[in-house]
Amino acid sequence: MSFRIARPDPAIVADLRRKIDQKTKPLGALGALERLALQIGLVQQTLTPTLDHPHVAVFAGDHGAAKAGVSAFPQDVTWQMVENFLAGGAAINVFARANGLGLKVVDAGVAHDFGLRDGLVDAKVAPGTRNYLDEPAMTPAERDSAIARGAALARALADDGCRVLGFGEMGIGNTAAASLITHHLTGTPLADCIGRGTGLDDPGLARKRALLVRATERAGLPVRADGGKDHALAVLAEFGGFEIAMMAGAMLGAAERGQLLLIDGFIVGAAFLVAARIEPAIVDYAVFCHRSAEPGHQAQLKAFDAEPLIDLGLRLGEGTGAALAWPLVRAAVAFLNEMASFESAGVAGKA
Amino acid sequence: MSFRIARPDPAIVADLRRKIDQKTKPLGALGALERLALQIGLVQQTLTPTLDHPHVAVFAGDHGAAKAGVSAFPQDVTWQMVENFLAGGAAINVFARANGLGLKVVDAGVAHDFGLRDGLVDAKVAPGTRNYLDEPAMTPAERDSAIARGAALARALADDGCRVLGFGEMGIGNTAAASLITHHLTGTPLADCIGRGTGLDDPGLARKRALLVRATERAGLPVRADGGKDHALAVLAEFGGFEIAMMAGAMLGAAERGQLLLIDGFIVGAAFLVAARIEPAIVDYAVFCHRSAEPGHQAQLKAFDAEPLIDLGLRLGEGTGAALAWPLVRAAVAFLNEMASFESAGVAGKA
Repeated sequence: MSFRIARPDPAIVADLRRKIDQKTKPLGALGALERLALQIGLVQQTLTPTLDHPHVAVFAGDHGAAKAGVSAFPQDVTWQMVENFLAGGAAINVFARANGLGLKVVDAGVAHDFGLRDGLVDAKVAPGTRNYLDEPAMTPAERDSAIARGAALARALADDGCRVLGFGEMGIGNTAAASLITHHLTGTPLADCIGRGTGLDDPGLARKRALLVRATERAGLPVRADGGKDHALAVLAEFGGFEIAMMAGAMLGAAERGQLLLIDGFIVGAAFLVAARIEPAIVDYAVFCHRSAEPGHQAQLKAFDAEPLIDLGLRLGEGTGAALAWPLVRAAVAFLNEMASFESAGVAGKA
Repeated sequence: MSFRIARPDPAIVADLRRKIDQKTKPLGALGALERLALQIGLVQQTLTPTLDHPHVAVFAGDHGAAKAGVSAFPQDVTWQMVENFLAGGAAINVFARANGLGLKVVDAGVAHDFGLRDGLVDAKVAPGTRNYLDEPAMTPAERDSAIARGAALARALADDGCRVLGFGEMGIGNTAAASLITHHLTGTPLADCIGRGTGLDDPGLARKRALLVRATERAGLPVRADGGKDHALAVLAEFGGFEIAMMAGAMLGAAERGQLLLIDGFIVGAAFLVAARIEPAIVDYAVFCHRSAEPGHQAQLKAFDAEPLIDLGLRLGEGTGAALAWPLVRAAVAFLNEMASFESAGVAGKA
């Protein structure tokens, strides 16, 4: 597996900065939106970026460990929520519609036979991962297949003119997988990477913690904040899930094609951690959309020195944080392209 | 002046809470958006709120004190920026367009003769306030006229079906007026209410501070965190400006008609402080949209125990924070109205 992700040429930054500073507003007055406009111009290597055909892709997968009790919800909720996505009734459907985002629903590895269904991308690697309490969640071949299918999906979207890809997920038990990945790839103590997920009570949280300690002990993988591609791939195969592996592949494929990546919360962030260990240049393409209420997300944000756009106490997943932050991304490009300059508007500058 | 603002009947809260909790998501997983959906349902007294014909109104006014050096920009920028609004080139134009908000530009008291202009609401009380370093910024009659005109404008929008009104402003020198109002109405030390506005350097900030100390000493008004209507009205007349008084009136008129108020940053917040001292029930109708970089805004938010929706380091005014947060407000209502319930979607609940 190999991705050619270009580090954007910083030569354009000075011109972008000048264009932003000549807009009819005090210097820096648009705060984070100015940094965002600069980043997008840099990624697209233009003073007039475009954000055509924005999409959010929701990857669903099941986790063998779910039946061991790492989640407050039963495993069947994964496929039931996929049905909800297909029927248009989930939060991500509502927010994507409200904010003008196309939506792709992807079966990365759900333990359910959907048959052929309109609106569902069948990229199933297997009907759920194995239980990482007993054995690796997936084989190297399954992992690589998931990554390749994700990349192919992103490339197909790019071929259709999509310049912005948001990421979302569904998978009962996947905050546990994200905790294990975050611990191994950032060096943050495991306990600080584990939260209540969809709403565990105190005994449930204690059980989840104990199970994840067991999983790390069984796997015996090194914990490395500075690990590279091989380490990240080993951790990914060990703890899964297919939706996380497929998202990592889609991120890599999307960045290779110059797409802007809308990174959602904790589980999407775990996939991004993997992708960034595989190809570090990908960080330039990422917009961190929201701060999740999950504690492990703070470790991820710290690893990338990232300040997300919104902080609303969300802990839902599905890409809802990305879909909710998307209008801010759109607004950043709109001001860069549409706002008048002091000169064009005939407005006096600072005294 | 009298406004009849009803405190919404809390009897509906339990039904709203139940509706929110039955949505296909873990309990509380939409964080601040759940509180927002509940607030809007409460204000509109319905389980299916609507946010028809949302608008942002930008009120412009000049300040007699501007020429004393309280701003980094010359006073002419006020009318020049109004021209920019009318031409569609300012940040608020871009963001209102991007997010589907109607825009009203209101001359509350600019020191410039615009003539009859398409798209400009002429509500000019006078061509700028007096200099509060020497005398009260406005007479009680001017203040009451500004409030009445603002209320009339909000009522006219309500008559046209507008259910959401955002507030923005333009007025060189108006962070200084907002600082004085915030100090007198919250009891926060004056120094903690004063910031760099549009970008004062250190000597500029020191000069602004010294001038505002002089203004408070000349006026000699009491500082009262628990002051009522008469105190707020006295402070408003003393320090102005017309755009602040007119916004306070528009907020009161809008809340009287059940409109949801999108409160922008520091200057709009000063107008809201005045409105809330006149009619405390107005707080139920207010959505605090963003956290301004101005220090005085923190004092206002603390006074209302408010946690704004976004925090992007904005310090532009014009209602840009309200326009940028608006998609989140719309999303809150969309999830309440459009999301499936566990039962309707056939999704299993917590184990």
